[in-house]
Amino acid sequence: MTDLNAIGIAARAASRQLATLTTARKNDALRAIADELEARGGAALEANTHDIADARAAGQSAAILDRLLLDERRLAALAADTRRVAGLPDPVGEELESRLLPNGIRLVRRRTPIGVIGVIYEARPNVTIDIATLCLKTGNAAILRGGRETLRTNLALVDVIQAALTRCGLPPAAVQAIADPDRALVTELLRLDRYVDMIIPRGGAALHRLCRQESRIPVITGGLGICHIYVDESADLARAVDIIENAKVQRPSVCNALDTLLVHPAVAARLLPAVARRLAGHGVELRAAENALPFLSEAEAGGARVVPAGPDDFDTEWMALILGVKLVGGLDEAIDHIQAHSTEHTDVILTNDLGHATRFVNEVTSSAVFVNASTRFNDGGQFGLGAEVAVSTQKLHARGPMGLEALTTYKWIGYGSGQVRE
Amino acid sequence: MTDLNAIGIAARAASRQLATLTTARKNDALRAIADELEARGGAALEANTHDIADARAAGQSAAILDRLLLDERRLAALAADTRRVAGLPDPVGEELESRLLPNGIRLVRRRTPIGVIGVIYEARPNVTIDIATLCLKTGNAAILRGGRETLRTNLALVDVIQAALTRCGLPPAAVQAIADPDRALVTELLRLDRYVDMIIPRGGAALHRLCRQESRIPVITGGLGICHIYVDESADLARAVDIIENAKVQRPSVCNALDTLLVHPAVAARLLPAVARRLAGHGVELRAAENALPFLSEAEAGGARVVPAGPDDFDTEWMALILGVKLVGGLDEAIDHIQAHSTEHTDVILTNDLGHATRFVNEVTSSAVFVNASTRFNDGGQFGLGAEVAVSTQKLHARGPMGLEALTTYKWIGYGSGQVRE
Repeated sequence: MTDLNAIGIAARAASRQLATLTTARKNDALRAIADELEARGGAALEANTHDIADARAAGQSAAILDRLLLDERRLAALAADTRRVAGLPDPVGEELESRLLPNGIRLVRRRTPIGVIGVIYEARPNVTIDIATLCLKTGNAAILRGGRETLRTNLALVDVIQAALTRCGLPPAAVQAIADPDRALVTELLRLDRYVDMIIPRGGAALHRLCRQESRIPVITGGLGICHIYVDESADLARAVDIIENAKVQRPSVCNALDTLLVHPAVAARLLPAVARRLAGHGVELRAAENALPFLSEAEAGGARVVPAGPDDFDTEWMALILGVKLVGGLDEAIDHIQAHSTEHTDVILTNDLGHATRFVNEVTSSAVFVNASTRFNDGGQFGLGAEVAVSTQKLHARGPMGLEALTTYKWIGYGSGQVRE
Repeated sequence: MTDLNAIGIAARAASRQLATLTTARKNDALRAIADELEARGGAALEANTHDIADARAAGQSAAILDRLLLDERRLAALAADTRRVAGLPDPVGEELESRLLPNGIRLVRRRTPIGVIGVIYEARPNVTIDIATLCLKTGNAAILRGGRETLRTNLALVDVIQAALTRCGLPPAAVQAIADPDRALVTELLRLDRYVDMIIPRGGAALHRLCRQESRIPVITGGLGICHIYVDESADLARAVDIIENAKVQRPSVCNALDTLLVHPAVAARLLPAVARRLAGHGVELRAAENALPFLSEAEAGGARVVPAGPDDFDTEWMALILGVKLVGGLDEAIDHIQAHSTEHTDVILTNDLGHATRFVNEVTSSAVFVNASTRFNDGGQFGLGAEVAVSTQKLHARGPMGLEALTTYKWIGYGSGQVRE
């Protein structure tokens, strides 16, 4: 019964209004949303208790239930985040370049909103507020398709947003949710290229694959991160153990966590036992290639979990306390392994050799490449972008952590005085 | 028999070599291609005579035959164009931003090649050299799929390019052509997302639609231009006639030619007869909405061709000496008409009213918007971009005329000294 076409038409009409709003009016609307979340967020909390009850009845794990949960504390955080977005600089309207052409036309390239953005996401209800406020800040209309597990919560949050928009005299269709959990609507949304300008999937590899395969609308793909650290012969090994530990265990369930450790043979005997001992303390399981196993037997005897690597283990994003380990002959082989197995998310070299560091950052084509630092730094917040829309591992439009600018495009404006082309 | 997968693998490997070449080596290769075109271009001319003979036998029009033709003069122009591309600034390697993060990591955003670019084009064999040299300049490998009408010519030109690349010690797979005219290979290329990073279609609306529908690879769509001029009440009408003439007849077969003329009622009686007379001299047929017909009857009696507009006439890119004409109530209605019918290519207002000019450039969302100038200025050469890869009417990555920068992406590089995330 959901008429996606009508949603598209309303979003397109709203986007035309949003595109010409002043920054002040957009920020007022954002603050109104924050106020409304505080004043009337109870309805969303109430809706969430039903979503959580259903999920619990369906036997979801405690970790999943935690991801679905919206409570007083998280609601307050969403209101605070919304006020923070209001305080960010507005990229729209910036003149990216401006010059006088030889024929007297003044040519300006001006940053503008994209138009209508479709967002398909899973689980966490905070994404509803997060992405809606970032779209609004940049003058874009949003069509939201959240996971069915938090459908009631998401709809209640969109009600809050729309009430605030109406109060500010803005079109409520600036932020719409697809209220019907029918999965066919996802595919239909991906074909709504007449009204939707960009699709942002926020979820796992299967969602990204679906979007890439089915969408007629440009998609920002990303999210999947098979991340590598290569420990070169000249690396500071004490620091290496700290960095590997941080990259693997500080937050193992995220896309910039470490998946594969590549080690130069000359340092394997000193590095690997120390890494194995340190990670054993966190319960990390090592999936070791045959050439790495001999260096891990002592640690294994001491209690570390070591398993011979299977055929797919170097093509797996673990999202868990598991780490692939392999010896590589040197820099060339390390780069070849990364180029063959990386998802172009985050790859790291630990080295004190300037030439090797330079070659690594030049030749590894990933969206973020670090020298002597943890993979965990590939993040919009860490990069100082102010907001993170998503992390892109594709090559067009935006790459790596996407800030507000990634929700904009530009147009060319030519101010003439009667010029015709010769 | 064509193994597209093998072509993809070879292109990917070549792209890794290209990505780290210095500007000097890339320019040497471009000059070698120019030399080779002059020294061994005869084979391409010979191949072209066979393509032309086949096309003539198939009953192609003189206009099409001219588009397919490669002769001595055009070959010399291709060599000169290639040397000109060698002389352009190289965007690759530019540091788009660089800063010291609070934790001491130096973060750099560096412009890089995209990787492998698939180009699907029709007719003109010069596109083979044009796009291959622009890709090479920006360190990208190219997979070319030209029209079957010039298959022999295209293959001969790629032979020339590959000979030059080999002579320079570069991988010939940097520029490959799909030698098999089987149309199924186009669809297969659009699904080669494992190896190809970007698809550029250069051709008509049907090709762009096919790419958008079938591609799993990001596509730059564009090319289709339903372009408008709105003549406001305050416009300088003498200049308006000159601009309309220029936009319509200077080169009617290109995408930035004028398709629809929108006129304020207050100036219709003075403007339309003058426009009709001027365009009649070029044999332009006017497709007039009912509200415009009364203002054209006198000109029609004087010999101008005036036809009542049909239902699709304001949604048609003419590519011919035809012009839609309609009266609109004022600025609001003009903008509404453009937003409903434009392909977001090029739209123009002729006015002396500053407020109207400002609203028009703010509210019309097209990739190029002009005040008091011809639509024909939406062009990479006119904009001073140095080279034009294509004209994009989509909103992601690049919009409007695409210069060399549109063939690049960026990566984030972080130089640390042992940092871990708190």
